[in-house]
Amino acid sequence: MGEFELIAAIKQLCTTLPTNDFEGIGDDCAVLEIGGGESLVFTSDALCEGVHFLRAATSAHEIGHKTLAVNLSDVAAMGVRPIAVLLSLSLPEGLPEGWIEAFMDGFTALARQHNVALVGGDTTRSEHGIILNVTAIGRGPSKHLKRRRDARVGDIILVSDRLGGSAAGLKAILSERYDTLAAHIHRTPQPEVEVGAWLGAREEVHAMMDISDGIASDLRHILTASQVGAEVELTAIPLDEGATIDEATTGGEDYKLLLTVEAERCTTLQQDFEAQFHRPLYPIGRITHDGLIWRRNNIAETRDLHGFCHF
Amino acid sequence: MGEFELIAAIKQLCTTLPTNDFEGIGDDCAVLEIGGGESLVFTSDALCEGVHFLRAATSAHEIGHKTLAVNLSDVAAMGVRPIAVLLSLSLPEGLPEGWIEAFMDGFTALARQHNVALVGGDTTRSEHGIILNVTAIGRGPSKHLKRRRDARVGDIILVSDRLGGSAAGLKAILSERYDTLAAHIHRTPQPEVEVGAWLGAREEVHAMMDISDGIASDLRHILTASQVGAEVELTAIPLDEGATIDEATTGGEDYKLLLTVEAERCTTLQQDFEAQFHRPLYPIGRITHDGLIWRRNNIAETRDLHGFCHF
Repeated sequence: MGEFELIAAIKQLCTTLPTNDFEGIGDDCAVLEIGGGESLVFTSDALCEGVHFLRAATSAHEIGHKTLAVNLSDVAAMGVRPIAVLLSLSLPEGLPEGWIEAFMDGFTALARQHNVALVGGDTTRSEHGIILNVTAIGRGPSKHLKRRRDARVGDIILVSDRLGGSAAGLKAILSERYDTLAAHIHRTPQPEVEVGAWLGAREEVHAMMDISDGIASDLRHILTASQVGAEVELTAIPLDEGATIDEATTGGEDYKLLLTVEAERCTTLQQDFEAQFHRPLYPIGRITHDGLIWRRNNIAETRDLHGFCHF
Repeated sequence: MGEFELIAAIKQLCTTLPTNDFEGIGDDCAVLEIGGGESLVFTSDALCEGVHFLRAATSAHEIGHKTLAVNLSDVAAMGVRPIAVLLSLSLPEGLPEGWIEAFMDGFTALARQHNVALVGGDTTRSEHGIILNVTAIGRGPSKHLKRRRDARVGDIILVSDRLGGSAAGLKAILSERYDTLAAHIHRTPQPEVEVGAWLGAREEVHAMMDISDGIASDLRHILTASQVGAEVELTAIPLDEGATIDEATTGGEDYKLLLTVEAERCTTLQQDFEAQFHRPLYPIGRITHDGLIWRRNNIAETRDLHGFCHF
């Protein structure tokens, strides 16, 4: 069973269970309205040694940072602020002296930066390798929530920052070049916590998600959920230093935001964003009725692009 | 660093972060009041192959059941009902055909039994072995919440069901006797979901927690949090078929409830419990000012007893 087949099978199973007022699987987070116009959102992500990080190439401090970052990114993608996390640590015997302390240091530094509480979790022994799991909880006005299913035909597609650095960085790390800017981006991704909450408050932002598997994969989730198509101009995708268009579209782990915005209000949103964050929002394409077309300098690509897949 | 040292270090770190209205680490679950007299509770637990289960000795269906059961137990211990869970699956390549389906079948059967929604999670590849993480969310009246810190001197200590079956079952399984009643208890523990919510509604129940590491370990958490002592009569501890007093006190993984109750109202509570659940609540001791004394037929034990520890 492939990763997306497995997710589809689990999604199907979920429909046989009660919902208990939750909006469940299908977005970056599950949503629970709690009254007073407010909602909580929930997301859970595991990081496994050898799959998501290599202990030899990533310091414990960086792993602590990244473990939290990927979960805060999912909350930001919903348009609300993360408020708390639970952390499960499964640790093998014989970790180097100080490893856990450095890991917790990286984790709590990022938590402090974004005002996130650490409210629970679990510590267990693992037979092989380090496995980390974080569940993040976000909170915000229900009307700020952004979902994958809300893209509309004619919307402009934008990304919140440069892409491809993480994939380029992983390539550098695998060639034992640890000190490049891209390697740094790969090891310590910066989740768009402030940007996500700010975009959540803008009603002209329709669909939003974070870019974890590469836009070639992630954009498809928005298209499927919204039952629409898209045209993307590959040369419009903003690139991190040293990254290629391929890395930006299919590499993944950038943890920037992908959003669709009402066309008539897009220019104003871009101006306000730039005034707020002193960097641009990047338009890369447009939502269409159906299909997905990648263009390079306005000429349609013949090959299709796909993002990262775990299975 | 030992398991409890690590937890203490993390607890200390948490105090350097904002709380965002959460009651954090220190109980079976974290608590968030959401208005209207209601609270949500949150808990997260990892299960690792080779540590929490052996694939050769436990079916995928049973692992699915147990993964959910241990988390529902933590919610029940707070005195409220579980409403939803998030599930992270980290899976190695080459799992036997049908393994995931059988796992999900065991997981969802227990979820259905207790009206729990599956609202999110994650699927990733693991380099070695199966690692499962569940985050459970509970909901109920804030005044029903039971905490470890609320035991009072003079309280009666009770357990909600027979103990030791899980430890005896593990011993049987390790001797390749898979078909004993105890082996069945070990592989498919039944969380006290109904019992927990019922006890939550009784104000004479002061402190409560679930028995996951054996009462020799778990009772100490209540005593430390409440700054009290206890005397326990070992022969009063109800035993599962084939279990010894040692297995009942130090074995762990029984997932029954340990509670302290106002002495004057204890008999009525026991009668009401028996009328409701057609089985007794078992008094095993009493809360004192300080110290922890184990008695056998009213004679103090000279050796101390300790529960299961991961590190």
